[in-house]
Amino acid sequence: MKLARLGNMGHEVPVLVTDDGYFDLRGVVDDIDAQALTPQGLAKIRASVGTLPVLPDAAELRIGAPVTRPSAILCIGMNYAAHAAESGSAPPERPILFLKTPNTIGGPNDGVNIPKASTKTDWEVELGVVIGTRALYLESPADSAAHIAGYLTANDLSEREFQLEISGGQWSKGKSSPGFSPLGPWLVTSDEVDSSSLRVRSWVNGEPRQDSSTADLIFDVDYIIWNLSQFLALEPGDVILTGTPAGVALSGRFPYLKAGDVVDIEIEGLGHQRQVFGQA
Amino acid sequence: MKLARLGNMGHEVPVLVTDDGYFDLRGVVDDIDAQALTPQGLAKIRASVGTLPVLPDAAELRIGAPVTRPSAILCIGMNYAAHAAESGSAPPERPILFLKTPNTIGGPNDGVNIPKASTKTDWEVELGVVIGTRALYLESPADSAAHIAGYLTANDLSEREFQLEISGGQWSKGKSSPGFSPLGPWLVTSDEVDSSSLRVRSWVNGEPRQDSSTADLIFDVDYIIWNLSQFLALEPGDVILTGTPAGVALSGRFPYLKAGDVVDIEIEGLGHQRQVFGQA
Repeated sequence: MKLARLGNMGHEVPVLVTDDGYFDLRGVVDDIDAQALTPQGLAKIRASVGTLPVLPDAAELRIGAPVTRPSAILCIGMNYAAHAAESGSAPPERPILFLKTPNTIGGPNDGVNIPKASTKTDWEVELGVVIGTRALYLESPADSAAHIAGYLTANDLSEREFQLEISGGQWSKGKSSPGFSPLGPWLVTSDEVDSSSLRVRSWVNGEPRQDSSTADLIFDVDYIIWNLSQFLALEPGDVILTGTPAGVALSGRFPYLKAGDVVDIEIEGLGHQRQVFGQA
Repeated sequence: MKLARLGNMGHEVPVLVTDDGYFDLRGVVDDIDAQALTPQGLAKIRASVGTLPVLPDAAELRIGAPVTRPSAILCIGMNYAAHAAESGSAPPERPILFLKTPNTIGGPNDGVNIPKASTKTDWEVELGVVIGTRALYLESPADSAAHIAGYLTANDLSEREFQLEISGGQWSKGKSSPGFSPLGPWLVTSDEVDSSSLRVRSWVNGEPRQDSSTADLIFDVDYIIWNLSQFLALEPGDVILTGTPAGVALSGRFPYLKAGDVVDIEIEGLGHQRQVFGQA
């Protein structure tokens, strides 16, 4: 299933997206939230298919992030070898975890403001994984799949001076500006996604930037979930951003973003985003 | 005012704590959450004083964390010079930000399990600040006070191997195990707290460990809020942990925690916590 949230910020309506259109899920779940993303919540949605009312004029509505209010956004750094190299780092021996504040989440096509005093705002297309069942101390990566609700396209926007130069080495300061986590357009449930080899791309003003595949992830989705579960509890609705491939401005090969720039990102099967940048 | 939440985990009742006892706030606010901590929410609570029913048998109830569901726990690292030194670091030039997942929050006296595979679980008493009004791009530290709902005692529990040795340098991995953020017993509203010189202490098995004052903070509360607001939006209900003074196990002067150990922490005017440690 493809799940989405349509409507103005803070007033999004949960919908099921099919080839036949957009179907209103308000009679089935409150929102696409922790509750709806549990196996029980998804089973309720699945059971409702065929009985749902069409949402009128859905194509006219803003597309919101397909999940709301995660307890955490957990990010894996340096998870593609070529991106680690362009960032001046060796490939990590273990997943590197950092966090973004959840109030960074925006819709896939919402405008994003470059932060005040920023000169190094950068894009990062990433495969996002949404948790469906609490995960703590999993025994092996093979146990991870049962804890995944679905997948989505994410842009892990980053301000490199804030992240790397004036942060004391902790990255969250450059990852948490308003609008810095566009998610969506959809959440695709895990039964319909093989995350092992999805093409991952970005463009700036129509010119190609990143073009890689999740096959190149150093630590794959199952390994990440198993590894994180040794250190913390992943909760239903939590979003894991799995790392970005080479081709960002930090490499020195491309200019950082400025007001007026247009970023497109896309993950095979998970949909396309487009952000027009403004200035805070 | 002193606000608290009493009752079993997930079923806490919001209360006002006075010298006359515990008063039930359920008729006034849903919970001590983002909504209740806004100036409007606090004004509603204040207006109800004198009309509130006593909560029966309150002294028998578990004390929960005095805030629930913050969107983020924002932590400042190395914010006391002597602690930076014992950690092998120079005092930072700017506040160092890292995040803990909010599902680490526990009551002040809840038992805490040492994580599986942990050999370096450590205590960190810290002044906690709770935001009352959204803060973004504040003009100066003098603007910060208006954004504070109140203060609380916090233990920023940390696993040093997870944080420093197998983290790739990003600290969140050693900060987010279940139960790693005991908060409380109360939130004391900002009108009743001068945070500039509060004694901050911890003990392990009754032996003194940390003993300092918030007067020794490198970056004070107003500076921290102003600084963070340049990089992200602080939301009502968010908890800022302002850093820990010298006297933790990481210094090499004391052993790390083991099952059966008892940690006490206290901040002048903000109350006392006691955690008995078990083993996950």
